[in-house]
Amino acid sequence: MYYIGIDLGGTNIAVGLVNEEMKLVATKSTPTLTNRDINEIIKDMAETTLALIAEQGLTEADVAAIGIGSPGTVDGKNGVIIYSCNIPFNHTNIREAFKAYTSIPVYCGNDADVAALGEAYAGAAAGCDHAIMITLGTGVGGGVIVNKHIVAGFNGAGGELGHMVIEKDGAPCNCGRKGCWEAYSSATGLIRMTKEAMEKNKDSMMWKLAPTLDEVDGKTSFDAMKQGDETAKQVVDTYCDYLACGLLNIINIFQPEVLCLGGGVAKQGQFLIDLLMPRIEKERYSKDIPQTTIKPAILGNDAGIIGAAMLGK
Amino acid sequence: MYYIGIDLGGTNIAVGLVNEEMKLVATKSTPTLTNRDINEIIKDMAETTLALIAEQGLTEADVAAIGIGSPGTVDGKNGVIIYSCNIPFNHTNIREAFKAYTSIPVYCGNDADVAALGEAYAGAAAGCDHAIMITLGTGVGGGVIVNKHIVAGFNGAGGELGHMVIEKDGAPCNCGRKGCWEAYSSATGLIRMTKEAMEKNKDSMMWKLAPTLDEVDGKTSFDAMKQGDETAKQVVDTYCDYLACGLLNIINIFQPEVLCLGGGVAKQGQFLIDLLMPRIEKERYSKDIPQTTIKPAILGNDAGIIGAAMLGK
Repeated sequence: MYYIGIDLGGTNIAVGLVNEEMKLVATKSTPTLTNRDINEIIKDMAETTLALIAEQGLTEADVAAIGIGSPGTVDGKNGVIIYSCNIPFNHTNIREAFKAYTSIPVYCGNDADVAALGEAYAGAAAGCDHAIMITLGTGVGGGVIVNKHIVAGFNGAGGELGHMVIEKDGAPCNCGRKGCWEAYSSATGLIRMTKEAMEKNKDSMMWKLAPTLDEVDGKTSFDAMKQGDETAKQVVDTYCDYLACGLLNIINIFQPEVLCLGGGVAKQGQFLIDLLMPRIEKERYSKDIPQTTIKPAILGNDAGIIGAAMLGK
Repeated sequence: MYYIGIDLGGTNIAVGLVNEEMKLVATKSTPTLTNRDINEIIKDMAETTLALIAEQGLTEADVAAIGIGSPGTVDGKNGVIIYSCNIPFNHTNIREAFKAYTSIPVYCGNDADVAALGEAYAGAAAGCDHAIMITLGTGVGGGVIVNKHIVAGFNGAGGELGHMVIEKDGAPCNCGRKGCWEAYSSATGLIRMTKEAMEKNKDSMMWKLAPTLDEVDGKTSFDAMKQGDETAKQVVDTYCDYLACGLLNIINIFQPEVLCLGGGVAKQGQFLIDLLMPRIEKERYSKDIPQTTIKPAILGNDAGIIGAAMLGK
């Protein structure tokens, strides 16, 4: 049998065909065009799915399930997408809506959660019952897998690991709280800290890599640090202190077998993990037992498609 | 059928007989006497269990399972208690050890986790698939129930909600970190804040309730606040700010249907919850969906026995 995974993004609807070995065998995508009626978007999701199945020489009978990963709050139990800030869902029963197009059963989940599921089934945490994926991008996204299932809470809104305050009354966060992990450990947080350091240190090498503050990105401080810039090293050290602080909170709470890091900042890969581990080892709560391994996520954008497909497996 | 629950404490071994309706029908206890060989303690646990069964006119055939809640790190899957700072376990296979005394199957879990399980099956969170219990005592203990199962991680050490840093580089915690939730929201943290405020305000009414600092307890500030003392009100306000901060972190991560508060400080009951709710409602991440209800735990010391019994149900 095959499984369809749909990664519904603000820009594209990416549909993938996944086999029993959890490998992505073919993909097809179409623009999301969020400024239109939600039923039009659902129609495109369904039609792209059916077109991909046909292109691969398969029929609907070859596909066991369709899984959809969507941004926002998702009621996976009932197949309802409650709300997303980018796509015009409003308590939309996507499982029912798909019945107009296909009899293949439909499942759905939050996009960060299904990406974690993808890494836990077929990626960096393959074989682990307990895994977590943290995405260090515009925000800090989280997906938690316990006993191979997504932890989404009773209302579908759980797993918001980024909105854990780690510095009470600290930096303002978009969610309205102050001092959230996301405010420090996202690429956005890193860029803010980089700019602040550059403004205070006009002779930093970072000014060569980013001649104006608008050119600063999540790599600026790491690149300058690797070339020996002391100010950049301080930025990276501070960033790693905050990141490790939140990671250790998550480890103390969940004790996952593997915690994988994805998103833009995690492209630093093992270099970043080598900076984090001494900080984490110093303050681990539980000693004398097996410890969480921190790894770079490996599936990249495919994690969302494969994880969505796994919802129906 | 009946179920045996054993709450193994540093002072007493409390054994309870629980019926199919999850009611505690009889109890029997014996001192733990921790300064002796672990096998002697296990023998007392087993013999007290068998004596209770006999006293109730039952036989081993009437008992489906024995569940043990122990402090420390517990490998519930394999029936092994890995480590406890108070009781001399050392990777002790308690399931195997019990076979010398009875053929009833044995399960085990961390004491805070099984107390949460008790509240989730038969207490303040009865009927909820997703529930959390926080104990505000000497430390801040946590038990997390997801899909009616304990979240203990891959190594049995998960659920350490108290060792989540909420104020980076803040008050020192016994675990070695700085700024843990436990350092502020435990009874110990409240007592520290109470003493600090009393030392700065020699005319506070709190000095009447606790004429020396050694007499300060977790009630001092609440009692004085209720009598109109402004310094005490500031202590309680600060305490509630920290407590609400951590609670909201936990809600954002887990979105449990019910979060129950137990332990000494939670004896303030609804008075405490009424102070917490405006703080939590102000900063909730997810709006327009069902929200976590915060309730006082209701089973008291029985939660540990009933929850342990539920391990085998």
